[in-house]
Amino acid sequence: MATIRDVAELAKVSTATVSRVINSNGYVNDGTKKRVKEAIEQLNYLPNDVARSLFKGQSKMIALFVPDITNPFFPELARAIEDVTNRHDYTFVLCNTDNDIDKQMDYLNALQQKSADGFIIVSSSLREEDLQHIQVPIVALDRIISPDISSVTVNNRSGSVQAVQYLKSIGCTRIAHIAGPEHVDNAALRLRGYLDEVKHEDWFNSDYVVSGAYNFDVAREAAIKLLTNYPEINGIFAGNDLMGAGVLNAAASVGKKVPDDLAVAGFDGIAIGGTLTPTLTTMAQPIYDIGAKAAEILMTQIQSAEYGVAAEELTVRLIERQSTLKGGV
Amino acid sequence: MATIRDVAELAKVSTATVSRVINSNGYVNDGTKKRVKEAIEQLNYLPNDVARSLFKGQSKMIALFVPDITNPFFPELARAIEDVTNRHDYTFVLCNTDNDIDKQMDYLNALQQKSADGFIIVSSSLREEDLQHIQVPIVALDRIISPDISSVTVNNRSGSVQAVQYLKSIGCTRIAHIAGPEHVDNAALRLRGYLDEVKHEDWFNSDYVVSGAYNFDVAREAAIKLLTNYPEINGIFAGNDLMGAGVLNAAASVGKKVPDDLAVAGFDGIAIGGTLTPTLTTMAQPIYDIGAKAAEILMTQIQSAEYGVAAEELTVRLIERQSTLKGGV
Repeated sequence: MATIRDVAELAKVSTATVSRVINSNGYVNDGTKKRVKEAIEQLNYLPNDVARSLFKGQSKMIALFVPDITNPFFPELARAIEDVTNRHDYTFVLCNTDNDIDKQMDYLNALQQKSADGFIIVSSSLREEDLQHIQVPIVALDRIISPDISSVTVNNRSGSVQAVQYLKSIGCTRIAHIAGPEHVDNAALRLRGYLDEVKHEDWFNSDYVVSGAYNFDVAREAAIKLLTNYPEINGIFAGNDLMGAGVLNAAASVGKKVPDDLAVAGFDGIAIGGTLTPTLTTMAQPIYDIGAKAAEILMTQIQSAEYGVAAEELTVRLIERQSTLKGGV
Repeated sequence: MATIRDVAELAKVSTATVSRVINSNGYVNDGTKKRVKEAIEQLNYLPNDVARSLFKGQSKMIALFVPDITNPFFPELARAIEDVTNRHDYTFVLCNTDNDIDKQMDYLNALQQKSADGFIIVSSSLREEDLQHIQVPIVALDRIISPDISSVTVNNRSGSVQAVQYLKSIGCTRIAHIAGPEHVDNAALRLRGYLDEVKHEDWFNSDYVVSGAYNFDVAREAAIKLLTNYPEINGIFAGNDLMGAGVLNAAASVGKKVPDDLAVAGFDGIAIGGTLTPTLTTMAQPIYDIGAKAAEILMTQIQSAEYGVAAEELTVRLIERQSTLKGGV
């Protein structure tokens, strides 16, 4: 492997000059610059990023923590973040944490040792105090960890109000909700939004809210029971799309036609929703934009220490598909 | 931040002794070891991995190249690889290449500069000569790039034979195939397997093979045409599950009942298949095992230069679900 010394010798300059050309700092006249560049090419010299990060204390590497990349919400998020980091010549590290505190702390320590420059974190378990020893920028996704840590979230509660209003507008008169896990902030907010919109209706029945655990099978079983016990239900708002998919399967198994007998809407806007039968209406989060925005905030904070805390709330939007459009499939 | 010198001073030993304790090499008596460890804890000292990788020329970092992590096949693969690398204390870097040659070469060069220790590559475009300058181990997934590069693949062709035999065994007498892109090796092999099993049937018609481009919408449109023009078709083998989902939606839109009028099977075994209505029968690849196996091979090759080329072919297996089980949903 060629060294900086080999390049300097071939170009007949000092190693300091080669370094100035590589790092584009300090004046070097055009003729010299050309000679150095030719020598670099000829020798196939790669300036070593490891050596650079040792001197600068930076690795040009950032990490994303997600509970599990196989949860269909996260791949699009990861793609967006990686696109941005790649454009900035940063390396993108992916960590599956299972929301486990010890695993998250281990990742944080290991990556600090490798001089990681920043973290984007999706976690329902990490608390502010767990992050106090981190000396690089952090952006929290999906949930606000602390007012001192930047975050990108969406309007879960008002988005859910909007979803239920939409179901009413297309003629649903008995609307149930399949809720996510109570301890997850966004699930609690979506339930809140549903209740905001239905709790004063004379038909409202607290048995219309059942838990689907953000899981296909659990939601499917819950929906089968719900539709069997309360055949008057003609609209279901599922707290996420995966549970919406479970409702569609439940409806088929109890002989309810979607959307004619039962309209179904989910939340999230994951790609799967568009591949179901019928395709699933949803309150879509701008998933790609959330990831890209988080990555841009992180890049800005890494590059400029003066940049303050950012708290962005993006807006969900309705995507109408076959599961609510009569004459649909 | 504490330095190794601070630790040495507090523990009243030399920095060389501290280094021996940290790296667990060379003899240090138990009393001294305890003092060093206590000093490390007290000072919250983190030995710097960056400095280590500079001396050793290793970063304890490996990278996975996928065309696009949002393709639902890749998240489970990435999860498996990251689980293994994490167990070995390696950092996992994810790169979305879009199968673009320039992008792949840029990633390879950038990661070599960062002293990446190995690569796991899913690519239908990279050729053997593109990888000749890589001096660390590589494992190719899904496709054999060269006999000199380790690989993990599955039995695409015989697995497809098995899928079609299964459709025959449940009573299908006219079986069509939705094929993936011609230039993708596994799509060509799956088509080959379908033809192996049907080309000598008196009912075989080459119009029963249509292209679905490994895409939901393209497959859906193709299946609508197919089922309209050839209403006698009572079985469809889709070259992947995403196209299988398109077939299910197409069947609903032309009024064919699945599985009573039409049995549908896919290939891949992605999680989505279990969340469709009806749930989709598939020839499942052992996706997690493929990723884990590739990561284990890579780890072995990184740790021992003498280890030769591995070429593993894993076996797909049938998962029967509602789309072929009469009385299903």
